[in-house]
Formats: sequence, C-alpha cells, structure tokens
Amino acid sequence: MREINVDNLDDIAIGAAVLGTGGGGNPYIGKLMAREAIKKYGPVKLIDPGELDDSDVVIPTGMMGAPTVMVEKLPEGQEVVRAFQELERHLGVAAKATMSCEVGGLNSVTPFTVAAQLGIPVVDADMMGRAFPELQMATPTIYGIPATPMAIADEKGNHAILKTLDNRWAETLARTMTIDMGCSSMIAIFSMTGEQVKQSCVRNSLTLAENIGIAIRRSRSQGIEPIEALRNLTEAFVIWQGRVVDVQRRTATGFARGNATIAGIGEYYGRRLEIAFQNEYLIARADDNEVLISTPDLITILDTETGEPITTESLRYGFPVTVIGLPCDDRWRTEQGLSIVGPSYFGYDANYIPIEARY
Amino acid sequence: MREINVDNLDDIAIGAAVLGTGGGGNPYIGKLMAREAIKKYGPVKLIDPGELDDSDVVIPTGMMGAPTVMVEKLPEGQEVVRAFQELERHLGVAAKATMSCEVGGLNSVTPFTVAAQLGIPVVDADMMGRAFPELQMATPTIYGIPATPMAIADEKGNHAILKTLDNRWAETLARTMTIDMGCSSMIAIFSMTGEQVKQSCVRNSLTLAENIGIAIRRSRSQGIEPIEALRNLTEAFVIWQGRVVDVQRRTATGFARGNATIAGIGEYYGRRLEIAFQNEYLIARADDNEVLISTPDLITILDTETGEPITTESLRYGFPVTVIGLPCDDRWRTEQGLSIVGPSYFGYDANYIPIEARY
Repeated sequence: MREINVDNLDDIAIGAAVLGTGGGGNPYIGKLMAREAIKKYGPVKLIDPGELDDSDVVIPTGMMGAPTVMVEKLPEGQEVVRAFQELERHLGVAAKATMSCEVGGLNSVTPFTVAAQLGIPVVDADMMGRAFPELQMATPTIYGIPATPMAIADEKGNHAILKTLDNRWAETLARTMTIDMGCSSMIAIFSMTGEQVKQSCVRNSLTLAENIGIAIRRSRSQGIEPIEALRNLTEAFVIWQGRVVDVQRRTATGFARGNATIAGIGEYYGRRLEIAFQNEYLIARADDNEVLISTPDLITILDTETGEPITTESLRYGFPVTVIGLPCDDRWRTEQGLSIVGPSYFGYDANYIPIEARY
Repeated sequence: MREINVDNLDDIAIGAAVLGTGGGGNPYIGKLMAREAIKKYGPVKLIDPGELDDSDVVIPTGMMGAPTVMVEKLPEGQEVVRAFQELERHLGVAAKATMSCEVGGLNSVTPFTVAAQLGIPVVDADMMGRAFPELQMATPTIYGIPATPMAIADEKGNHAILKTLDNRWAETLARTMTIDMGCSSMIAIFSMTGEQVKQSCVRNSLTLAENIGIAIRRSRSQGIEPIEALRNLTEAFVIWQGRVVDVQRRTATGFARGNATIAGIGEYYGRRLEIAFQNEYLIARADDNEVLISTPDLITILDTETGEPITTESLRYGFPVTVIGLPCDDRWRTEQGLSIVGPSYFGYDANYIPIEARY
C-alpha cells in the first residue's frame, strides 16, 4: 500500500497515455477530475492485489464513450461516484475498493475520483493492460466473469442497472445507452471478489504507468531520448518515424473511428504507414500493405521531440512522430483472447503475429 | 372484483383493438400469451381501482416495440414476469397488483400473463384510455408521477433497471435498448400507489374494452351493423368509408411508421383520405388537406363487413373499411395533455379540435 497524491497522478496519466494506444479518453480530463477530488478529500491509497482478501468485493469504475466527445463535455465526477454507489446498492454489498477498467488514458485515473470521495483504496491493476474500445474486451471475460450487473449514469441524472446474457450484450446495450446520454457515460462494472481480481486482472499496471511517466518526464533533464527511457523500462519496439500527412476521422456508433497516414523519414523515407483506429490504434500497415503490428499488441504514437504520447483525437497534420509497439498481456495471445481482441474481431484481414516475432 | 377467464380475454382483445387505434401491438399475440397463462394457472381477478388501499403498490406491465416485429418474434411470457419481479426487487416491495399500460391492443391483456402466473389481480384501468407510441404518453405523466425506476427485459436473458431524469428520458433510453433487444422488449413501469392509480389513471377501461368486444361479437347474430353496436355503447363518429388503395410503411427508430390512403365510397366517393400512423393512427386528412380527426382523439379503422378493427400492420390493399373516431379522455385535452400527445408533438401542423366539435 502506498499513497497517491496529485503529483503521482501526473506521471500515471502520461504513462497511461502511452499504454492507452491513442485511446481510453484524454488523460488530462481524467487527471483534472481526480486532482480535484484528491485536493478536496485527500490522497488515495493504492493497494496491491495481494492485499485483498479473497472475499473482498472490488467494483471497477470508468468512463464509456467517444473520447472526441468527452473533450467537449467535461464530467463533474459525481456521476461516476453515483454509478459506483448504485451498483453497490443493487448488489447489496459495500465494496472494499475500486479499480481501473483499463490502464489507458482517462480511465487509468477515473477511479481515483471515486476512491478519494468515498475514502476507499484503488487496486493497482486493470482489466486490459492497455485500452480497448469495447466493454467485453477485458481479461476477466476470458475467465468467464460477468461484466454485469453494471451501473451506467450520465450528468443529467439518468442511470441504469444492466444485467445481460453475456459481456458482449453488456457492450451492445451500454453503448447505445451511452449514445443516448450524449455519447459519454460513467460506468461501474465487472464487480469481482478479491480472488477473482488476483486471478483474472493485469497486476500492478498503474505502477507501470507511473514508472513510464516518470521515465519520460526525467529523460528530458537527464539528456536522453524519451524513447530510450521508455525502452529501458519496457520491451518497446520502434515501428516507424515520420510526419502525419493525413488524418481521417468520424464519430460513428459511439466510437471515434478513423485512419492516420504517416510519411516516413530517415530509414522510412519514401514510404507511408497507415494506422487504423477505433478509439485505440488497432493496426499499422506499410504502403505495400505489410502489417507491421496489430491488436492486441500495443501501438503508440509519440511526439518525436517531447516523447509525449499522442491520442487519436490530438493527431494533427505535420506532427513529427515515432510509432512504437509494446507486447500485450500474454492472455490476449491465447485463442480465446484473440477471439475477443484479435485483428479479425475488428474486421482486419490479418493473422496476429506477436510483436517480438516481427522484429 | 370479478374473474377473468379465457373467454373474457377474447372480448377484451377485440375491444382493445378498437381502442388501440391501430396500434398497441397485435392483440392476438397478447391474448395467446395470457390464454396460456390462465389455462395453466387459473383465472385472474380483475379489481376496480376503488378496491385498492391508498398505500397498495401497483406495477403496470407491458410490451414495448414495433408491432410489426412482434408478429415475427412471439414472446413466451416469462420475460414480462421477470421485468415485474426485477422492479419489485429493486423497489424492495411486493406489489399488490399489476395493470395495463394502455388499453390498446396487445398491452391490454399482457398484464394477465403476469397476474395469472403470480396469483395477483389486474386493476381495471390503464394509463392512456387508448394506445400511444411513447412511454411518457401516460396520464400519470400529467400528474408528475415518474415512469422510473422501470424494468426492461428481453427473451434472451438481458434486463435492466432504468432511473431517468424525466419520463421523456425513460422513453429515449428504453427505446434504443428495445431496438438493441431486437425491436421488442417487456417492461414494468410507472410503479404507483393505490391512491395515485385512483387519481391519475383511466378507470374501468378494461371493462369498456370487454363491452365493446361483446357488442361487436353479438351484433352479427343480432342482425345489426357492428358499427351501430359500437355507437350504442360509445360516442363513436363515422369519419370515412372506402377502400384501402395504398399503404406505405417503414420500421424506423423502433416504430412502425407509415401512411394509409383510403379511396372514398358512398358519400365519400371521389375523394381520398390519408391516415398517418406511428404505431397508432394519429391524424386523418381528406385530399383537400382538411383534418377530419387527430390525436389525442381515437382513430380506428374497422373492416366494414365484419366490424373487426384493423391494426396498422394488418392493413392491406383493397380492404373495405370504415374509419371511426372516438373522444379521448378529457385529461388529454388540457394544455398539458396536448403538449404530450397533441398533433404538434408528432410534427403535424394542425390545431387539435375535439371530435365532437367537428361533427
């Protein structure tokens, strides 16, 4: 157990933007919410999954929707607390802690808003080890743990408890409800026991995010390339270097979808990389259609100069960028994992090949 | 209090199809469901609203969605019981009775499925005195009674509890959820006290429906015109007689929308009547664009020969039909009532004029 204060949030948010693979919502929005809550209610305890009793109840919390909309519609934080409490009430339990649904972007720090306000800890873990666009894309799904009953709430005062046949149905029903609610909502989902958290979740991912954030921040004063700092800490591969020459995006069926084209520089000169995204960057192909990396491995676009990760909604023409790849959690590489988050689920005609096997 | 058996259901269903103004779902589906439940569990008590204690809890039940889809996707009856029980559980109450949301079509008899299976009575009342296409279009809305918490369930095993800012939001969220569920769902909604039922609902509308059904059925053996039998019992006006020459329909955003064109015969010869519907018949205009009747008054199309009411999904080219009009509940004629169900709410450029004032 250790305490998370406002300064730690900054580092977690930067690291989570790296692990967020361009999605998971703008981390600054989540940070602002969590910062206000910590300033008002005090620091939050971050506990290791091993500190949970097997019978403890943990309720992860987060935001659902298209990140491009969230930028315009800043949530106040009350609705995520409400979603958490509505689910507690429905289940008739007092949860021991909350947790991040994904370690990517906004949702890495959203639970700190709940934790600060209610005086409960956050578990140092998440359900993806990255960000993914759909609710059922969580490691507990691989273990047969139901996403529902889940709670969903908006800032207008609407909320619902959903109980669905399977986790894919939770995604379907919560997604259209989120669209009705103005394309973003707050959720409490995947209520689990401590035992289930230890078995099914990605451990210590918030600490990893924080360490990545620290490494990138310090690299500047230490006179090393941010990307080198990242490679000292993770198994990161450089996929591409270049400039953004085109971004096509549309917010459709509740997602921020689109394509980014990056003209190569240096060793990549004369070629183009195309990266497709659906909230997150999902597949990168060179102009000869060769797949360089694909989901579930992590694709992250960094500002070449500052090392800052660039989310899909911040991508702009002319940015000098470095595309890196990181290996995903091993469980995503199983047959069952790939059936949930592999390239074919997203409609890409590509076999998954682990990033380490490509380079 | 009196007992409703299988035979009574037949008459209620015919009368409810008249009061359903073309919508409310195919009454035969609801009748089949209720008949099976009564055969299995025994007759159902129908109680007068006056028999309720002021503190009793009543939970109305019904089906939501496009009737054209329901014909294809016959519900089993378990999901409406489930919606009722989920709402009871959420509220932490044992409801004294269930009730019809609308006296039109399917939903007039849907509650008998719940009542038979759970051994509770049905209240002889409804919340519209007819059928309407949207959830918030209920007389309790006029009294500020919230539609939520409501429960919604499908036949696949999905269900949800919704709690919304207002009754219009209940419609919005439940409608898209219904679309996700395959364009039809079962709901438990507008939980009320006995006092609220007595004050805000349309009393004895099931008995009225049954009497209409009996009158139409007996007219054949009594040698009188079915329409005359109806006029002996209600303040019905004949609006038009003719043949259906065109029906345009589309199932859009969860509703069965469309237009029917009826070429006049007899005194209407040489003119055409156009009736627009959104689940229910909403406005009838002659070819000189003169409005002959509009929502909230009831527009019903009867088979001229048999007197049987024709729902929007059963309308076919060539049918000889008689269009009749019935006055709506007085509360729909107030400024607040018209703001919820008047012609302008549905997008028609017409002032409401009570049917009695037109003829």
